[in-house]
Amino acid sequence: MESGPSGGSRPAEPGPRLRGLRGADAAASASSLSRFGAEAGCRAPAVAAVLPAGGSGERMGVPTPKQFCPILERPLISYTLQALERVSWIKDIIVAVTGENMETMKGIIQRYQHKRISLVEAGVTRHRSIFNGLKALAEDQPNCRLSKPEVVIIHDAVRPFVEEDVLLNVVTAAQEHGASGAIRPLVSTVISPSADSCLDHSLERARYRASEMPQAFLFDVIYEAYQQCSDYDLEFGTECLHLALKYSHIKAKLVEGSPDLWKVTYKRDLYAAESIIKERISQQVCVVMDTKEDEERVGCCLEEMLKTELNHIKVTSGQDLQQIILEQCYNFVCVNVMTSDFEETQRLLNMLEESNLSILYPVVVISVHFLDYESVPFGQKMEKVMQIREFAKEAKKGNILLFGLLIYFPQEEQKLRESLRQGATIIAALIKERNSGLIGQLLVA
Amino acid sequence: MESGPSGGSRPAEPGPRLRGLRGADAAASASSLSRFGAEAGCRAPAVAAVLPAGGSGERMGVPTPKQFCPILERPLISYTLQALERVSWIKDIIVAVTGENMETMKGIIQRYQHKRISLVEAGVTRHRSIFNGLKALAEDQPNCRLSKPEVVIIHDAVRPFVEEDVLLNVVTAAQEHGASGAIRPLVSTVISPSADSCLDHSLERARYRASEMPQAFLFDVIYEAYQQCSDYDLEFGTECLHLALKYSHIKAKLVEGSPDLWKVTYKRDLYAAESIIKERISQQVCVVMDTKEDEERVGCCLEEMLKTELNHIKVTSGQDLQQIILEQCYNFVCVNVMTSDFEETQRLLNMLEESNLSILYPVVVISVHFLDYESVPFGQKMEKVMQIREFAKEAKKGNILLFGLLIYFPQEEQKLRESLRQGATIIAALIKERNSGLIGQLLVA
Repeated sequence: MESGPSGGSRPAEPGPRLRGLRGADAAASASSLSRFGAEAGCRAPAVAAVLPAGGSGERMGVPTPKQFCPILERPLISYTLQALERVSWIKDIIVAVTGENMETMKGIIQRYQHKRISLVEAGVTRHRSIFNGLKALAEDQPNCRLSKPEVVIIHDAVRPFVEEDVLLNVVTAAQEHGASGAIRPLVSTVISPSADSCLDHSLERARYRASEMPQAFLFDVIYEAYQQCSDYDLEFGTECLHLALKYSHIKAKLVEGSPDLWKVTYKRDLYAAESIIKERISQQVCVVMDTKEDEERVGCCLEEMLKTELNHIKVTSGQDLQQIILEQCYNFVCVNVMTSDFEETQRLLNMLEESNLSILYPVVVISVHFLDYESVPFGQKMEKVMQIREFAKEAKKGNILLFGLLIYFPQEEQKLRESLRQGATIIAALIKERNSGLIGQLLVA
Repeated sequence: MESGPSGGSRPAEPGPRLRGLRGADAAASASSLSRFGAEAGCRAPAVAAVLPAGGSGERMGVPTPKQFCPILERPLISYTLQALERVSWIKDIIVAVTGENMETMKGIIQRYQHKRISLVEAGVTRHRSIFNGLKALAEDQPNCRLSKPEVVIIHDAVRPFVEEDVLLNVVTAAQEHGASGAIRPLVSTVISPSADSCLDHSLERARYRASEMPQAFLFDVIYEAYQQCSDYDLEFGTECLHLALKYSHIKAKLVEGSPDLWKVTYKRDLYAAESIIKERISQQVCVVMDTKEDEERVGCCLEEMLKTELNHIKVTSGQDLQQIILEQCYNFVCVNVMTSDFEETQRLLNMLEESNLSILYPVVVISVHFLDYESVPFGQKMEKVMQIREFAKEAKKGNILLFGLLIYFPQEEQKLRESLRQGATIIAALIKERNSGLIGQLLVA
């Protein structure tokens, strides 16, 4: 197979865990701001971002514009906003949407609690939408509420996996060179067809790159370019770097981006995005147990089995649960070794509902119970299924997916380990799939 | 957003259902052969295909070469072979694999019963692998077992969704023009960097296309080109169309391909491929019921509910089951209204195992039972869970995923409809996810 140019061999997903906007991220983002000084020999600039989101998504083959297509029930554009918002040094995010989608967009901002967002009306083309976004930032406009940034990032609403490092790289390069953009190796050879649809010539793949997003510009450079550019450019052009070159005579600095920058274009890309997001939020699992002595054996063994199925397992007896929730763990296993009620599970559900953790992603909670045939008949224990179904219906309203798991608890050590191994397989399956069609079910291991 | 050049607005997936190699396909494929005469004014040529599969998949970020990465537990290359094999007019398929993967490849051919495949040793580059494949077809080689085709298709092992129509189009065009290749609109603007990684110029996107696969050539045209071409071409080139132009002076005819032709390059593409395959094999569901009068009401109502969740529902009382299996339906719901045993389900499992249907895809079977509180206590009914777990373990060995579903059967019409609606949601969730971690579970609606 082809070996791409440099940068092509970088590992793809999974990248760093998709992060939310709260808690640990703010601190990390603030510290990276100081890199401006160290790396580029210049002070931190005022930065804003413009996000054209007026497209109709015709290549998708679905009626909803792609930026509004749901992934785990949340619109794609909300993930992109989240990726920009978690970067504390981006002061304003201007989103250009069409009039008909303005109310939808306001609803998204409210529901997912996005901050620092301003909306402007999209133009009929991508360039016109970007121009409208820039105008909202320019101080020469009447009723301007925003302050003019030194550097402006332009990004796509349909590239949700942009990381802070590439944003920092393009901003730093733009500050120095006036313009900058992320590039990637070409996946296919590019050819030029003749008028009769025959091959005229093919380009040498190694000499070209795909121009991706984000791009960044000194605000005056790109705003001046847009003010000067022709109607033809605004109608048929696709590339901001080209406008900066043509009208402001700035040769943009090109920055190698990661494969994460890919653009959600086709329906298959939505599938890929959903799988990536599911994988990222399934990395970390918190096992909540009480501390009674006779439960420790079971707890440790279950933890050991889970480690063969999932990456990061944290076990807690509940004291540091608040902190774990703050650190954005989206999966909880609530173990009740001998008790047969849902008290522990209910306590966890209450904490989760108060925390707002499930605003951005569905949270999985698995209520684990044990079945000792000698003390309680199977049928009697199983009747609990009805109870967990009611809990699950309530929890679903708050975007929490609740499942029950009954683990057979034989006295014999070897059989117990086998039960726990099966339990771990079921837990991993439920967490990885996040299937809301199966909430309220009581599974048996 | 950008509006692509012509062809860009075609709907993407879901395309036609992914088909197997047996049964109905052979007839459809044979009839399309006659299109050669009607469309191109020429007779059907002898066609072979060469599949270079020697790559290391370094861009994937995973140790397994991408063509061997599993999708629903089956290696990606097997899906591509299946797509070529189902086209009856492709006489031979030559796969070039490295020495170290030769045994793996033989195992794949045997396990998934691929036909018309010959293996050759891959070269160190893509072009050398293709050349080795062509040599195996050339009659000037010693010990040649294969006959020289008039037209040869070159395809990638990592483009599993190629459809017969595009294969036919490139073969027909190659017969007329000497060479032909599928193209797609560019997704990103292509730029040329200067030596210091700054923008030199950007290409006008509408004037260029991405060169994709499949391509097809008159055998003599491409074989001659490979025989003449330089070591530099064999080492660093990527494009067969370019070789045909440079050495055989043939300007390839370019054919617009569908978005399905995309190449599995990154890990996200594997996720996308898995979702597409899952979606395609989940389209059709067969509901098996016996014909007793009192069951009809329930059966019809369940069918109605399923139709809101899934596309194609076929209901049978069992007589035409053999035919439905032959037509490659991969999902079965086995309904037992009043009986509480697994007799019907076991009969279906036996038929499936005899049919070999599950060789290519995991088949989902959901054994549905009804619970009338008044006649049987809940706990007693639930104890069946143990029984289905044993069946499921056995079935899994034959790539059949068996689940149980207990539907509450109240006398009141409205409540019954609600039970069935919940049952349909669970059935759809199980079929769409195909989660082998949950086999043997008895779910409750």
